[in-house]
Amino acid sequence: MSSENYSPALLQFLKASVKAPNQVIYTAASQRQNCLTKPPGSLGKLETLAIRLASLQERQKPGIENIVIRVFAADHGVVEEGISAFPQAVTGEMVKNFSAGGAAITVLAKALGADFGVINLGTINQLPPMEKVKDQRIQAGTRNFCLSLAMTEAQLETALLAGRAVVLEAKQAGADLLIGGEMGIGNTTSASALACALMQQPASDLVGKGTGLDDVGVHHKIEVVERALSFHGNLLDNPLSALQALGGYEIAALVGATLACAQEGIPMLVDGFIASAAALVALQINPSILPWLFFAHCSAEAGHIKMLEYLKVDPLLNLGMRLGEASGAAVAVPLLKMACELHNNMATFEQAGVSH
Amino acid sequence: MSSENYSPALLQFLKASVKAPNQVIYTAASQRQNCLTKPPGSLGKLETLAIRLASLQERQKPGIENIVIRVFAADHGVVEEGISAFPQAVTGEMVKNFSAGGAAITVLAKALGADFGVINLGTINQLPPMEKVKDQRIQAGTRNFCLSLAMTEAQLETALLAGRAVVLEAKQAGADLLIGGEMGIGNTTSASALACALMQQPASDLVGKGTGLDDVGVHHKIEVVERALSFHGNLLDNPLSALQALGGYEIAALVGATLACAQEGIPMLVDGFIASAAALVALQINPSILPWLFFAHCSAEAGHIKMLEYLKVDPLLNLGMRLGEASGAAVAVPLLKMACELHNNMATFEQAGVSH
Repeated sequence: MSSENYSPALLQFLKASVKAPNQVIYTAASQRQNCLTKPPGSLGKLETLAIRLASLQERQKPGIENIVIRVFAADHGVVEEGISAFPQAVTGEMVKNFSAGGAAITVLAKALGADFGVINLGTINQLPPMEKVKDQRIQAGTRNFCLSLAMTEAQLETALLAGRAVVLEAKQAGADLLIGGEMGIGNTTSASALACALMQQPASDLVGKGTGLDDVGVHHKIEVVERALSFHGNLLDNPLSALQALGGYEIAALVGATLACAQEGIPMLVDGFIASAAALVALQINPSILPWLFFAHCSAEAGHIKMLEYLKVDPLLNLGMRLGEASGAAVAVPLLKMACELHNNMATFEQAGVSH
Repeated sequence: MSSENYSPALLQFLKASVKAPNQVIYTAASQRQNCLTKPPGSLGKLETLAIRLASLQERQKPGIENIVIRVFAADHGVVEEGISAFPQAVTGEMVKNFSAGGAAITVLAKALGADFGVINLGTINQLPPMEKVKDQRIQAGTRNFCLSLAMTEAQLETALLAGRAVVLEAKQAGADLLIGGEMGIGNTTSASALACALMQQPASDLVGKGTGLDDVGVHHKIEVVERALSFHGNLLDNPLSALQALGGYEIAALVGATLACAQEGIPMLVDGFIASAAALVALQINPSILPWLFFAHCSAEAGHIKMLEYLKVDPLLNLGMRLGEASGAAVAVPLLKMACELHNNMATFEQAGVSH
């Protein structure tokens, strides 16, 4: 990574080493799965989930009780290129909806008994103080990345550290699982551009409908992303400067949160297209974080499956969701919980006196 | 259907008409989904689930609170052909494990707060009285269907009505959802043979590893199924006599339960390979039941995906599970619950003051 532009403290955080899963517990948990009263392997991915969680939590009996969900919100300068089906005002309006409990993620967080909050990193307008919303606005949205860097070095650092701060707070609260979500009109354009740069794939392969563009709109969005990629050129060769050039504040915060989760030993359940783009950036900065990431679902946003394939990860769900906000990850939480219940509470062949 | 062998009362039950989903509520629920604070369609299958449930329950606000799970257990004469990786004693041993709470489905039922019970329709040995287990043994397992009909007309009728009785009882208890499970060493062979007969596809396409056969075992199982199909010949041309020839008591009970759910107005969440084979039989007997069936998951048992494709249904999960017992359906329950929560509790654009 070209490091001259970033502070040594920032780089130290980003590159900090990550604890590997406990192999002794991994092996013991795998052996336990083979002794439970079922044909070995017959619980499929639920077995893998329980074994991975045990090895990360370093507990014989893994558990997902204390769930923290944080949604990062910010606006995007690139919206002036006309790439979204919804007006920019929606970002701030949805922050209010999160606070009032009317959005999908707030309904799901309540159903899960999760600790929910929003970090406003840069809506275009200042918002009044609201319950469950922290005002940490960096700027009135990013700059239009077709014409300049989306953010300054200092802004990037602030956003990355805002993500990290959420994880440190969650750790203090004893979180078993962290889910990072996002809200930002225009952010599928930012995430697509980042994915193109980092995966070196053409915009036509990774750009999708976002909140609901028609074919003409998608075609225009592809052209906007191509223009941005060409404008920034070599700057996109390293993940951190690509994030500065093309990212959003909420995406940078997700990158910081993803890295910090692994560093602080909290499993992260990765949501959809935007959160996966952030995970992609984080993984290119620090590949050692991979064992701490659980990919919740494959979204209907066209480029998501390509991103998951590129990362060689296998999502849990495929429900045609494409909402963001952390909603896909929230829907996958019961699978993690049930995987732990089965692992911890099923009888062994020995205990139950079942032949095998 | 050739009806001469079956009692008029039985045929009346099997063919009884089913209430169609309420189209007025279906339309209203679809419209509501498009007014909620999210891009239309962005909750994917969760939207469809809520709309379908609303139209079936005839409620503006659908809900899944009262869940009934019943596992039907029985042994299979065809086990003497050496088609299972586990000994036949396991059926009865697992019934004990269900009673004691150590099996996957009992752990899941407890986590879901579901009403759980087992109906023993024919383990090879009589079992002592046990909590949560009803002894309704018809016979010490079915006969070997390579050599004779698996069951008599009277036995088939008893098993079908046992499935129906469970639904009538669940209706009395106000069930919002019924899940039928099964336990029976050898029953993937029975289900594969039934699927071959009803879908008119070769055994090599539908026979899989069951609880864990190796390639030689699968090859032998294919040969056993081919032998049975050839032995019964034209008898397999109608679904009811095919069920009598090749089925198990637990599979016949699932057929009865599937039909009765639709007739009594209780949505059924269909589990994996065996439960889908039962649904296939039920659908060929009475196609009008289809709207009441929700397919929970695609199992790792090789033939299941072919069965789901044949039925043109789209399962919710694909987690590589292949355990049966209703476990795959239980794992999908939170998706139905969250679909209802979102539908009922999200704010509309109007309510939240969000632009669209």
